[in-house]
Amino acid sequence: MSKNLTKRSEDYSKWYNELVVKADLAENSSVRGCMVIKPYGYAIWEKIQKELDSKFKETGHYNAYFPLFVPKSLFEAEEKNAEGFAKECAVVTHYRLKNDENNPGKLKVDENSKLEEELIVRPTSEAIIWKTYKNWIQSYRDLPILLNQWANVVRWEMRTRLFLRTAEFLWQEGHTAHATKEEAVDEAKLINNLYANFVNDFMAIPVIQGTKSDSEKFAGAEETYCIEALMQDGKALQAGTSHFLGQNFAKAFDVKFADKNGKLDYVWATSWGVSTRLMGALIMTHGDDNGLVLPPKLAPIQIVIVPIFKSDDELKNVKDYVEPHVSDLRQKGYSVKIDDRLNFKPGYKFNEHEIKGVPVRIAVGPRDVENKSLEIFRRDTMSKELIDIDGLVDKIDFLMKDIQENLLLKSKDFQNNNTRVADNYNDFKKLIDEGGFVLAHWDGTEETEMKIKNETKATIRCIPDSNSQVGKCIISGNKSLKRVYFAKSY
Amino acid sequence: MSKNLTKRSEDYSKWYNELVVKADLAENSSVRGCMVIKPYGYAIWEKIQKELDSKFKETGHYNAYFPLFVPKSLFEAEEKNAEGFAKECAVVTHYRLKNDENNPGKLKVDENSKLEEELIVRPTSEAIIWKTYKNWIQSYRDLPILLNQWANVVRWEMRTRLFLRTAEFLWQEGHTAHATKEEAVDEAKLINNLYANFVNDFMAIPVIQGTKSDSEKFAGAEETYCIEALMQDGKALQAGTSHFLGQNFAKAFDVKFADKNGKLDYVWATSWGVSTRLMGALIMTHGDDNGLVLPPKLAPIQIVIVPIFKSDDELKNVKDYVEPHVSDLRQKGYSVKIDDRLNFKPGYKFNEHEIKGVPVRIAVGPRDVENKSLEIFRRDTMSKELIDIDGLVDKIDFLMKDIQENLLLKSKDFQNNNTRVADNYNDFKKLIDEGGFVLAHWDGTEETEMKIKNETKATIRCIPDSNSQVGKCIISGNKSLKRVYFAKSY
Repeated sequence: MSKNLTKRSEDYSKWYNELVVKADLAENSSVRGCMVIKPYGYAIWEKIQKELDSKFKETGHYNAYFPLFVPKSLFEAEEKNAEGFAKECAVVTHYRLKNDENNPGKLKVDENSKLEEELIVRPTSEAIIWKTYKNWIQSYRDLPILLNQWANVVRWEMRTRLFLRTAEFLWQEGHTAHATKEEAVDEAKLINNLYANFVNDFMAIPVIQGTKSDSEKFAGAEETYCIEALMQDGKALQAGTSHFLGQNFAKAFDVKFADKNGKLDYVWATSWGVSTRLMGALIMTHGDDNGLVLPPKLAPIQIVIVPIFKSDDELKNVKDYVEPHVSDLRQKGYSVKIDDRLNFKPGYKFNEHEIKGVPVRIAVGPRDVENKSLEIFRRDTMSKELIDIDGLVDKIDFLMKDIQENLLLKSKDFQNNNTRVADNYNDFKKLIDEGGFVLAHWDGTEETEMKIKNETKATIRCIPDSNSQVGKCIISGNKSLKRVYFAKSY
Repeated sequence: MSKNLTKRSEDYSKWYNELVVKADLAENSSVRGCMVIKPYGYAIWEKIQKELDSKFKETGHYNAYFPLFVPKSLFEAEEKNAEGFAKECAVVTHYRLKNDENNPGKLKVDENSKLEEELIVRPTSEAIIWKTYKNWIQSYRDLPILLNQWANVVRWEMRTRLFLRTAEFLWQEGHTAHATKEEAVDEAKLINNLYANFVNDFMAIPVIQGTKSDSEKFAGAEETYCIEALMQDGKALQAGTSHFLGQNFAKAFDVKFADKNGKLDYVWATSWGVSTRLMGALIMTHGDDNGLVLPPKLAPIQIVIVPIFKSDDELKNVKDYVEPHVSDLRQKGYSVKIDDRLNFKPGYKFNEHEIKGVPVRIAVGPRDVENKSLEIFRRDTMSKELIDIDGLVDKIDFLMKDIQENLLLKSKDFQNNNTRVADNYNDFKKLIDEGGFVLAHWDGTEETEMKIKNETKATIRCIPDSNSQVGKCIISGNKSLKRVYFAKSY
């Protein structure tokens, strides 16, 4: 397989689009804006799902499933939320097709099957879930409710890109209900930390954490907590959000509970989600000019073995030689693939596994069998080493940890080197043009935020919790309590 | 919790509907025909998914994900398939809402957002997948393709029932592509056996296996292999199907491959699925007048411990007493819940766990602490026993196996006792009225099948592979090669 991949320095966006397809992760479908997630890409998504799912369950959450459709009258109940999604939603209006009498063999919508009330394909599920919670919640004894669902959602985006912005995408959405404001805020923060730790420890992606400005927060939220990652082209990517929804949805759907003294109050809510967009973050954080680079914890195949052989006998010898070691590795839980395909040359296979980001490749030929050796290659540094076969398991133990750590360190370095402070608007514009996060004082007004956005395309990605240092807004000169993160973003 | 459950003998259908809700499995939503799967029901579905998913992977299948929507022109390409689903599909016609100027705060469909081509919410995914496979398949080297997806599908059913027939349901759908007819037929049979073994070994539901008659097979299939289970009311339930699709979809989407000699031919296909309908089979196979009865392999909670106490001290003593044993059980992989809720009495808890079908309940009070004993209750037989606490782990090992086996035996007995032979139409009608499977000779014509269906409401559930015994059709008297299974069905 020839890589033939555009270099990042030439055209980062083209590099991304090509990589997604060449690494067999996903492709565009014949439905506008909807993607096909291919087996290799889906296997990575399954690893993400499995790890997150167990973290949700460890923290007391349960999975459930709510309907795909939201009747229009429910959809519009929470006005800000409805306004936020109204312009990009798929609407079901009919429930039947019939034969098209003018076109034999063709079908057309049966006008007699028009729905009395249109159904919205969920862009997010707060409305349908809070309509349901109304029936589940009477007293403080029914609280908290800590649910999550793994689901598909649809947002009719005009410009789509594989994984980053698609009309249909896969995600998890948590929806919790609480008796007190404090408990709901704590939940939103808990999930914000859970997301940050997962992305950092498992995907080797460092993030900054904090809250969104009013104009960037979720439609219907009081506060949006976010994690933001920095891509190699200097643009930020919102990787996961958790929302403190206040009593907005409880009020919209009239969900009240009786406290211990019988006093009625509206229920407090959160919602939170990460999506297949994380796949985009993964690709753009670690990928290089040779293709995808996968952290070992996420790799569907962690180790690939490519036998070098000229005859069936040589292949058999090589396979017999590695077999006990492969079995040891599998017993330790590593996923090992032996690529013994006959119709592809080793060079082709090397390229294919490099572009697919397999963390470790082992090449073994007849000379290795003689010398009790093998050649081991690590994808992150593209470096080769000849080792004694008896040291294989130890070496793999080391490499799996080392590659994971190295990828995190490398991306942490990148983030640090591309996070800079601007103390006046001229510096700010220069730094924003160069890419990366720019920390700057902001007076807290939407007016300033919009001026900056219109003039530089940069938005406030995140208002950090810590980092308190009083200063003056780079636009208005008014007092600012801390610097906030600006960047151009995906 | 008072059970207050209708008896099966009084009204089986009412018993089912009440049980689904009282056992906290699912409920109707505010969207017509769509259900909310509640956490307890979803946890059972997750167990089903996990086991099936590993069986699919063991047999060489990979997961992927294809779009929710099917453009109308693709949907209608395979005519029989389209005809089969056209009358029950949700159609997306618009992609935007706007403010309703006549109703402030309300939204209406923006007529300017009408789609050029309508999108069908997938009732099944052959069309969208074969459109994709066309781009993936050129040569025999690209085959076989063995994919599965876990997804939601929508079929606009007029009469819906929780789990058994809902407008939206969850399922897995496998879609495979092969170079030869033999290989595709083998795949369909492999999955038919995989389903039968899974349902038998894991869900403790015995099934009969075979093929469907032409009028009962999947729209677009050459042959449908099925597993059929018998519910306690004597009605059959189709629990899973796998279809040999011939070259029908390859022809509809022009998918050809070059064989080793460069000769072009259409690709051979299968598709197969099981759905949340299996939850209905589970409930109706094992449930009794006290509620749900779960086979241990499917139970989200296998063992529940209810402490009996009058004071905080007593509760603490009881918990200290069972703690090391609970830890032993959990280490062995059993899922154990200690129900120490303070605001519910033991009797209420007992009822709740009985209605939810928890396989084993343990009650422990201060007297047990003194006597080194505990009371153990098995849900399948509703029988109690006082045992020595040191024998607990052995006892649980025994019970988990024994309950699983007992449930299967019991339902096998039921199936055997309710599978009878009719050698003439009068006997046939009498037996069908009494319920259960009726084995009868059939001449193989649709005419006979329809006459029987119209007069008795019984359909051919399954044409078994074996059971070859030549005879005469109970209607026409014409030659029949074997008896086939008739029943009324869900």
